[in-house]
Amino acid sequence: MPGRVESLDLRVRSRALGRSWGPRHGNTMAQLDSEVKEECLREDLKFYFMNPCEKYRARHQIPWKLGLQILKILMVTTQLVRFGLGNQLVVAFKEDNTVAFKHLFLKDYSGTDEDDYSCSIYTQEDAYESIFFAISQYHRLKNISLATLDYGENEDNRIGLKVCKQHYKRETRLSSNETLNIDSDIEIDCVLLDLPTLSESSQAWKQSAFFRLEFYRLLQVEISFHLKGIDLQTIHSRELPDCYVFQNTIIFDNKAHSGKIKIYFDSKANIEECRALNISGSTQKNTQYVLVFDAFVILICLASLVLCTRSIVLALRLRKRFLDFFLEKYNRRVCDTGRWEFVSGWFVLVIISDLMTIVGSILKMEIKAKTLTNYDLCSILLGTSTLFVWVGVIRYLGYFQAYNVLILTMQASLPKVLRFCACAGMIYLGYTFCGWIVLGPYHEKSAVLHHVE
Amino acid sequence: MPGRVESLDLRVRSRALGRSWGPRHGNTMAQLDSEVKEECLREDLKFYFMNPCEKYRARHQIPWKLGLQILKILMVTTQLVRFGLGNQLVVAFKEDNTVAFKHLFLKDYSGTDEDDYSCSIYTQEDAYESIFFAISQYHRLKNISLATLDYGENEDNRIGLKVCKQHYKRETRLSSNETLNIDSDIEIDCVLLDLPTLSESSQAWKQSAFFRLEFYRLLQVEISFHLKGIDLQTIHSRELPDCYVFQNTIIFDNKAHSGKIKIYFDSKANIEECRALNISGSTQKNTQYVLVFDAFVILICLASLVLCTRSIVLALRLRKRFLDFFLEKYNRRVCDTGRWEFVSGWFVLVIISDLMTIVGSILKMEIKAKTLTNYDLCSILLGTSTLFVWVGVIRYLGYFQAYNVLILTMQASLPKVLRFCACAGMIYLGYTFCGWIVLGPYHEKSAVLHHVE
Amino acid sequence: MPGRVESLDLRVRSRALGRSWGPRHGNTMAQLDSEVKEECLREDLKFYFMNPCEKYRARHQIPWKLGLQILKILMVTTQLVRFGLGNQLVVAFKEDNTVAFKHLFLKDYSGTDEDDYSCSIYTQEDAYESIFFAISQYHRLKNISLATLDYGENEDNRIGLKVCKQHYKRETRLSSNETLNIDSDIEIDCVLLDLPTLSESSQAWKQSAFFRLEFYRLLQVEISFHLKGIDLQTIHSRELPDCYVFQNTIIFDNKAHSGKIKIYFDSKANIEECRALNISGSTQKNTQYVLVFDAFVILICLASLVLCTRSIVLALRLRKRFLDFFLEKYNRRVCDTGRWEFVSGWFVLVIISDLMTIVGSILKMEIKAKTLTNYDLCSILLGTSTLFVWVGVIRYLGYFQAYNVLILTMQASLPKVLRFCACAGMIYLGYTFCGWIVLGPYHEKSAVLHHVE
Amino acid sequence: MPGRVESLDLRVRSRALGRSWGPRHGNTMAQLDSEVKEECLREDLKFYFMNPCEKYRARHQIPWKLGLQILKILMVTTQLVRFGLGNQLVVAFKEDNTVAFKHLFLKDYSGTDEDDYSCSIYTQEDAYESIFFAISQYHRLKNISLATLDYGENEDNRIGLKVCKQHYKRETRLSSNETLNIDSDIEIDCVLLDLPTLSESSQAWKQSAFFRLEFYRLLQVEISFHLKGIDLQTIHSRELPDCYVFQNTIIFDNKAHSGKIKIYFDSKANIEECRALNISGSTQKNTQYVLVFDAFVILICLASLVLCTRSIVLALRLRKRFLDFFLEKYNRRVCDTGRWEFVSGWFVLVIISDLMTIVGSILKMEIKAKTLTNYDLCSILLGTSTLFVWVGVIRYLGYFQAYNVLILTMQASLPKVLRFCACAGMIYLGYTFCGWIVLGPYHEKSAVLHHVE
Repeated sequence: MPGRVESLDLRVRSRALGRSWGPRHGNTMAQLDSEVKEECLREDLKFYFMNPCEKYRARHQIPWKLGLQILKILMVTTQLVRFGLGNQLVVAFKEDNTVAFKHLFLKDYSGTDEDDYSCSIYTQEDAYESIFFAISQYHRLKNISLATLDYGENEDNRIGLKVCKQHYKRETRLSSNETLNIDSDIEIDCVLLDLPTLSESSQAWKQSAFFRLEFYRLLQVEISFHLKGIDLQTIHSRELPDCYVFQNTIIFDNKAHSGKIKIYFDSKANIEECRALNISGSTQKNTQYVLVFDAFVILICLASLVLCTRSIVLALRLRKRFLDFFLEKYNRRVCDTGRWEFVSGWFVLVIISDLMTIVGSILKMEIKAKTLTNYDLCSILLGTSTLFVWVGVIRYLGYFQAYNVLILTMQASLPKVLRFCACAGMIYLGYTFCGWIVLGPYHEKSAVLHHVE
Repeated sequence: MPGRVESLDLRVRSRALGRSWGPRHGNTMAQLDSEVKEECLREDLKFYFMNPCEKYRARHQIPWKLGLQILKILMVTTQLVRFGLGNQLVVAFKEDNTVAFKHLFLKDYSGTDEDDYSCSIYTQEDAYESIFFAISQYHRLKNISLATLDYGENEDNRIGLKVCKQHYKRETRLSSNETLNIDSDIEIDCVLLDLPTLSESSQAWKQSAFFRLEFYRLLQVEISFHLKGIDLQTIHSRELPDCYVFQNTIIFDNKAHSGKIKIYFDSKANIEECRALNISGSTQKNTQYVLVFDAFVILICLASLVLCTRSIVLALRLRKRFLDFFLEKYNRRVCDTGRWEFVSGWFVLVIISDLMTIVGSILKMEIKAKTLTNYDLCSILLGTSTLFVWVGVIRYLGYFQAYNVLILTMQASLPKVLRFCACAGMIYLGYTFCGWIVLGPYHEKSAVLHHVE
Repeated sequence: MPGRVESLDLRVRSRALGRSWGPRHGNTMAQLDSEVKEECLREDLKFYFMNPCEKYRARHQIPWKLGLQILKILMVTTQLVRFGLGNQLVVAFKEDNTVAFKHLFLKDYSGTDEDDYSCSIYTQEDAYESIFFAISQYHRLKNISLATLDYGENEDNRIGLKVCKQHYKRETRLSSNETLNIDSDIEIDCVLLDLPTLSESSQAWKQSAFFRLEFYRLLQVEISFHLKGIDLQTIHSRELPDCYVFQNTIIFDNKAHSGKIKIYFDSKANIEECRALNISGSTQKNTQYVLVFDAFVILICLASLVLCTRSIVLALRLRKRFLDFFLEKYNRRVCDTGRWEFVSGWFVLVIISDLMTIVGSILKMEIKAKTLTNYDLCSILLGTSTLFVWVGVIRYLGYFQAYNVLILTMQASLPKVLRFCACAGMIYLGYTFCGWIVLGPYHEKSAVLHHVE
Repeated sequence: MPGRVESLDLRVRSRALGRSWGPRHGNTMAQLDSEVKEECLREDLKFYFMNPCEKYRARHQIPWKLGLQILKILMVTTQLVRFGLGNQLVVAFKEDNTVAFKHLFLKDYSGTDEDDYSCSIYTQEDAYESIFFAISQYHRLKNISLATLDYGENEDNRIGLKVCKQHYKRETRLSSNETLNIDSDIEIDCVLLDLPTLSESSQAWKQSAFFRLEFYRLLQVEISFHLKGIDLQTIHSRELPDCYVFQNTIIFDNKAHSGKIKIYFDSKANIEECRALNISGSTQKNTQYVLVFDAFVILICLASLVLCTRSIVLALRLRKRFLDFFLEKYNRRVCDTGRWEFVSGWFVLVIISDLMTIVGSILKMEIKAKTLTNYDLCSILLGTSTLFVWVGVIRYLGYFQAYNVLILTMQASLPKVLRFCACAGMIYLGYTFCGWIVLGPYHEKSAVLHHVE
């Protein structure tokens, strides 16, 4: 089996390179010169298609490139793991804060969200209580919260809660007892409750006309407020802490008018410069070491990039020589497969991966220096480049005979598998649409199916 | 492999068409005429079995039919998705209402149903409390519910709760202390509690003899009432809102007499004309656009239907010509496989799919115009037709050489797979019956198995 | 492929039957007689190995046996399903009762069992409260339970609760403050609380010395009582109701002395004759119809049994004729495979299945007539026989050419699959032992693994 | 198929042994002697490569070794199962204790841990209450706990709770209202609350300055205490009970400063000598029987070890004879595969397994005699050796022809499977890194993914 696949591989390659090694006739001077040239080209081609081990055996050429790639795999993976661990802390901090807010501001919050909303209420009394609970918790925040929080300023630079309610306009005509008069236009009423208002004794604000809700035309109530927080964890790793502004919004959603108000809690966390903060003590900056490491990664990738580009340039030159020779000698053009045989897909992969790592590392350094915050782009670049680097390891496995057979077999069977998937995909798509509409949202079974899944 | 399968395909087809291309002898005039006819038929047959690309290359015939099919896939899928999204809103409204009712009328409802019933009670005290809770919540409904609900009229046109209890008749003989006297006939007692009765102070109704339950012979208590609701969501999409009548029934099921009363909550929602409703404001009807889109889908399907029918008619005519020619020249009848080769199963699929889409779209337009409400039939028609249209895509994949091989291979292996499934099915059926009776309901393990699954 | 497997089958069969159809030489009278005999035997053998369809074509013999088997499949499956549905009601009644008892007698029962016990307590206060709660619920039972329950008599014919506590004997020596003196022998103390005792005002029983538990040497407290219940559901199907005696036991298990008392609730339900019960009304017995149906099943199975036995007897006679002929003509013995070819395994399967159905049906009739109660044996017999009957369907599939190939292929590959399973089983067994001891109970990981699974 | 694989096996073996059985020329005396020697060697080799059944048939040599191995499998498995069941009791006791402690010392503990911590709190009030609850429960321990617990001594030999709080140092400079002054150095404050302190009326300790927490700089509060317990379960199996010291630590972790304090409960259980304990009664030591069993296992393993070592020594001697002969006769060296053919891998496996069992059994005896407690090492040794013994069963299966084929096939395909796994592993590793960083911790999706899994 291996033998057969390998011979197949050789046949493909030889066919691609044309039948240039046929018997030679004639022995004039020009032919002799041509023969020398041909022999030289043959040698170069042979050497070009060797793998590093064979090259070392043939010309004692030390495989710098191979060594560099192995070093790169180690460096890039280390960098990625360090970056990921750092991000994990940040994400955990944000998520923990959101969970803590939900416990503080939502009445009877169970600890887990229902579907996509946090909790739901079913009676008018619960609706009033939930709204007043959130507002009074905001007022008492500093006495109850365990986090280092401070009130933040609204968009209009005032400290306080903004409560907005959205409802259908009431008809101007007198509504008779029997008829429901609804204007399909939507009105928005807002009120700003600042801290002094809330502190007033006897809680006069609860009695205001604003908080007399007419549920039959109410669409939603939105309570929004800003809080300032600080992530002190980074002090342990001797870095400066990040300051956050949390834009919290509690939405009581009655759009469906189905007797169930869904409560959504949304918390957006933005990183801001920490102004009012003094960190003293033995805080040494060890950021330098990280920056040096990143710079080293960039250097290695640059070297790899240069070497691979050089390889491709050399390969293209060799191809030109070969094509010219072939045209001259046999007066025929080499077929396309033969032309592409010269440009190694692996080199292209390595070059793309290197470029991504370099850009990603530069972004990472900027983020570290707190001048940039687009973690998203950086993580996509670094992640994808690491994926490519690891996939590239397969190439080095291909240098071993036994693995090469495996890889060629997989390459040959891939299109068939993809084709099968395309066919199955069509049927699956059709079935999905059909199942969704026939079994799905309309029949009551849907709920059952949903739970089963 | 591909080569073999393809040649197989060709062989099948050529065998089916008979061996009409054999050497010809003789050269009289009649034969010449016959030869011209034969050549013509051969050309037509060749063209008939071409795929659109080849037809375009051969006679520069633009593939209208192919284009139409591709357009149809897009249109039908869009229509289905829009229809499905619309239905999803309706279903969600009904389900949310049911959940809200359960929270309002069932005491200590946990938010999730147990098995197929909503909750269960185990003591006499709980039974009384649950019944009285549901009744008093009905009385206070307008003050607690968040939805826009109104009391609906019963079957006998009165507003109020109907409470029915079902129990075995008591024996007329004096029941001694030791014996349990039960008459296996069932009696039903009902009482209608209208709003004024419920509002009476001191809740005299609770003291009535009706509510003195004798659990040993009680089969079930049923509380039923009608509520009117309105789905205002559709106003957003500038459509008229739907009005609903909810026929709610709470059943306290003691049929098993096992010490556990299961409480079922059943809510049937019927769409009704909205009478007492005034919607004003900028409500424009955008229903027209949807209707125009549906009409366009119908047009396309009609066109596709006509073209496919025409193709089949042409094919049948060609077949007749071929059969006559074959009978005349070789004095033999063409075998069945050869006859069926002319009628493409794909055309039949397209025709069925088109007919279903047309009927479904007409139904959909009627539903939109609020004159019909059988969503079920409509969704089955549209869903199935979309399934067929997507499955039909496989046919177009068959035009590519590589895919054709795959499809033929799958066709060939299908009967073997089905046969294996039949055998396995027999053993599975036997095992199921055996497992159900031996491990299943009788032994206590059943509960364990049920939970494991 | 099919051709090959089939020819294989034929070859096996012909080899098994010997090479009796070789060329014949000589033409004396004896030989002629022998030839007639041989021809006759050949015909009989040919007919014997035919399937029903071929037999019908050959001698117009109507396949009674086949028809009977098909009828039997229908009857046996119907009988099984009816029996299963009946059992399901009985099991559901018992389970519902157990759940109801747990809610009545266990304090703070959550509705679902933890692992194998119902709930667990961690403080001394909870222990006392749980015990007293169970006892007082027993006292108030008639006022709280929804089921038709009555107090049952204990083993010593008294009505009441039996509370037993099991503990290590206390050392007779004076226990110093520092030392824990424990005698490894176990003592059991019991007290019987009958209803009058429990009704006493001021609940004097709670103050008794018995209820002063010394947890450091307490092993378990066991509360046991009997209750009488009745399953009225069967009245609907016009049958007599079953009466039950529930032997309930609540065990507070402190054997581990780990600070966690596990509470087990065990309820054994025994069916008893209903004495103190009068059912009147239109209760007709429709048990007869069921008995008639069962008798019919028995008849069919008897017929099938007789026919199959006859077939086997005929086959054995034919074999004897064949063996004699073979020995006489070729002076050789037929090999074992050839001998076994005559006895069809299917017939043996049918006979076993028939015997089981007959015994099972008789048991079922006895149960119906309330003279027997071993449901277990009956369900195992009926279930297994139904499994065999359904597996037997595969034989009829073997009559079709295409299925026959499949079945022969599966028969041929079975031993290899089993052999592979044996090897894998060895490794799996070794791994299981190793994994259990290395990862399993000893390391703390076990708990994690348990949860992951 | 079987034939082919087997012949392959024979070919491999014959190739490995060289082509020593070629035709012999010449017939001098020396050659005759050589031929006798060769014949003798050939016989020995033939016998050496036989399996036990063949050996028995050839020389009537009873397969002692095989019998011993079968006996060993039984003994070793029994020993492992007994050891595992014993350990399971110990682990269950520790786990039950930990669960009981959590219920006693953690306020509002739900019964299941959240992620890796036991519960979490979100308000300052909850924080104070949880801390005070744990402390007062410690004080009341003897009155509430169901287990036989006693207060243990701290590291500094005092009985009591140690409460430590860890926080950032406060800045010495006056903190203005606007700025947060934090010194990144960490301070640890501890207080020891002994029993008398806690018993004081009016709970003065709650008012101490230590318990005025400043959450903005608090890192964690740690409450630690020692408890003494006893596992009385072992008395049932007539063994001496184990005494335990539980080192409990409750950690209120505020390191993240995210508004959520995670409460960790950590309980380390160490086995100690039971000093203050008197067990009387009919406690007989049945430990002897277990020790005798273990000793018997050791004996069997020693015998198996000796026999296998002897086999290997004999094999090496035979190899030497063969190599010498080969070198002498053909003047060639035998290839490596041929050399290794002589040393059976199974013998090596058996020897390793025997050594592990012997060491493991000795450890087990020491543990039983309460002189050692490293259960870990012992279970790893016994578990691994049992795995090897069971895997060794495959060797005996190889003696049957049908199984041998299977095993050889699996051996041949193993390297290909491993190679494929290596390739897939590379891609998987790359994907893991990429997925972790791109989808993983940074995006909010991570939480969703986590729950889906």
